[in-house]
Amino acid sequence: MSTSEQMTTRIYLAQRPHGEPTDEDLRVEEASVPPPGQGQALLQTLYLSLDPYMRGRMSAAESYAEPLAVGDTMCGSTVSRVLACPGGQFAPGDLVLSYGGWQTHSVEPTRSLRRLDPAQAPVSTALGVLGMPGFTAYAGLLTIGRPQPGETVVVAAATGPVGSAVGQIARIRGARAVGIAGGADKVAVLREFGFDAAIDRHALDFPARLAEATPDGIDVYFENVGGPVFDAVLQRLNTYARIPVCGLVSGYNATSLPQGPDRLGLLMSLILTKRMTVRGFIQDQFVADQAGDFRRDMSRWVTDGQVRYREDVIDGLDGAREAFRGLLHGRNLGKLLVRVAD
Amino acid sequence: MSTSEQMTTRIYLAQRPHGEPTDEDLRVEEASVPPPGQGQALLQTLYLSLDPYMRGRMSAAESYAEPLAVGDTMCGSTVSRVLACPGGQFAPGDLVLSYGGWQTHSVEPTRSLRRLDPAQAPVSTALGVLGMPGFTAYAGLLTIGRPQPGETVVVAAATGPVGSAVGQIARIRGARAVGIAGGADKVAVLREFGFDAAIDRHALDFPARLAEATPDGIDVYFENVGGPVFDAVLQRLNTYARIPVCGLVSGYNATSLPQGPDRLGLLMSLILTKRMTVRGFIQDQFVADQAGDFRRDMSRWVTDGQVRYREDVIDGLDGAREAFRGLLHGRNLGKLLVRVAD
Repeated sequence: MSTSEQMTTRIYLAQRPHGEPTDEDLRVEEASVPPPGQGQALLQTLYLSLDPYMRGRMSAAESYAEPLAVGDTMCGSTVSRVLACPGGQFAPGDLVLSYGGWQTHSVEPTRSLRRLDPAQAPVSTALGVLGMPGFTAYAGLLTIGRPQPGETVVVAAATGPVGSAVGQIARIRGARAVGIAGGADKVAVLREFGFDAAIDRHALDFPARLAEATPDGIDVYFENVGGPVFDAVLQRLNTYARIPVCGLVSGYNATSLPQGPDRLGLLMSLILTKRMTVRGFIQDQFVADQAGDFRRDMSRWVTDGQVRYREDVIDGLDGAREAFRGLLHGRNLGKLLVRVAD
Repeated sequence: MSTSEQMTTRIYLAQRPHGEPTDEDLRVEEASVPPPGQGQALLQTLYLSLDPYMRGRMSAAESYAEPLAVGDTMCGSTVSRVLACPGGQFAPGDLVLSYGGWQTHSVEPTRSLRRLDPAQAPVSTALGVLGMPGFTAYAGLLTIGRPQPGETVVVAAATGPVGSAVGQIARIRGARAVGIAGGADKVAVLREFGFDAAIDRHALDFPARLAEATPDGIDVYFENVGGPVFDAVLQRLNTYARIPVCGLVSGYNATSLPQGPDRLGLLMSLILTKRMTVRGFIQDQFVADQAGDFRRDMSRWVTDGQVRYREDVIDGLDGAREAFRGLLHGRNLGKLLVRVAD
């Protein structure tokens, strides 16, 4: 038995980060993986998805998911290859969507795996446009945002997998899509995605540019960043505006509240006078009702070119930590993936 | 003609208030009322309703309704008696729901009047439990709050016409109703209204009392006051909590933002992690769809005693200004009405 012992290289939560996660917080080690039992599969990670929500899991603070325990392997969705599956539910070589985390190998329950067909779409899209980020955009925009033809939809982090899908789905629904991103290179990419207007949030006159790009105000703001972008958006919201809130990445490393004045009451007052809807959501709450529609619609849109996607792939698990830090600063351009193995 | 000229005593917006409205801001004068034409009626005001929204109309700031112009008679719903109606749509002596404002007599378009039947309910209830405040509670609670059996609903200003209706409708729907009010006398009244728990917001340990009264957290918070009550409520909200926002009376006289830290991002973060819905509304947006259901349900509930109401009536238009200032400080106990004439 011990001769065939499978080793994994894993990145684990060694201590809870204070602010930006360091290499002391997230450490690498070699460990052995137990042999898979009945109802389990031994997997080799091909792609690891890096997503902003992972920052929340590192903290002990109550959030929408249980925090990781210190010592746990960092969590994350993966595209993996089946190496062994004693129960025969999968064949060696099968490619699956899994939740293997930041490691090279893992053992997972077979019921948690979904088989991927490389002939249908590149398997990496199961982590992006056809996966959780794409579904976040689809469910949040259509269920909460409900864009109507001619309305204006604004989204930030708009080159990312969620934002780019939000903009493109908004246009499919006949709305005007305004994308916000950080830097000239990203703004150029927004035009490739078909946004009607693209704005650089680093521009000194960002609020004025946003106003110019939204002459009829903003009907839907898909919130995934918070911070100064939201401050500018608040000035442009129309009566009956809807704000699906799926993330606030600009604040994920924050260690204290910003200085005053306290604008909590101001926000509530805007919600009242504009008769706005602000609703937080996590995509998993919509899975049971909408995952089927999503797969049908999004696969078609990707196939016929109505929805494009972009991936930012880094090579090797070693780089995951630095790439994750960059993600929280918006340094990636497109869906951030780690190619762990070929 | 001039011998029969009708005079009115009116209170008008002489200048926009800075903070609390003074008697310099709202002045009294005698004026003549033009004779009613075809499609109009000359009315004598019997009851004037005083409501917090009126503070917003005094300010030039953009809000959910057009501000009054300086010089305008203060607006307000009234129960009035028809004195003359040249077109014959109403007979002299008919009692009507009108929007005559803060004055003793007015001329109004007959199409804006609704006939009231004193045999069905005391006519003053058309300004309270069977009128706009009751409808605000009904539509906001049932459409946005959607209380489920066993859930916990919290409302402040709970002896007021909106809050008391919210609590009683919540109980009709099988929810647990927790009322918040300012002062021991009001807390006693909350028990008359049938609230499952009643809390004095002036208590030094108010947050602890709220926690004790909401052992299972808060599923619906009907927001009509803001301020420290909301701060305490934020600590108790459950996942998927719903917050209909119909008013923020604690801040209506505010002239600047409170000191920091800035909790705007904190609120957004709570909305996200708790997957909450915060939605502002004004009752008029629901009138077309729900006014019929409201009249049917609420009339029945009032008749069979499932919904009680309480009125705080002051005598004479002279007292309206002081009573309105008291309203913004919560000094009234029940629906605040001015009896302008018998």
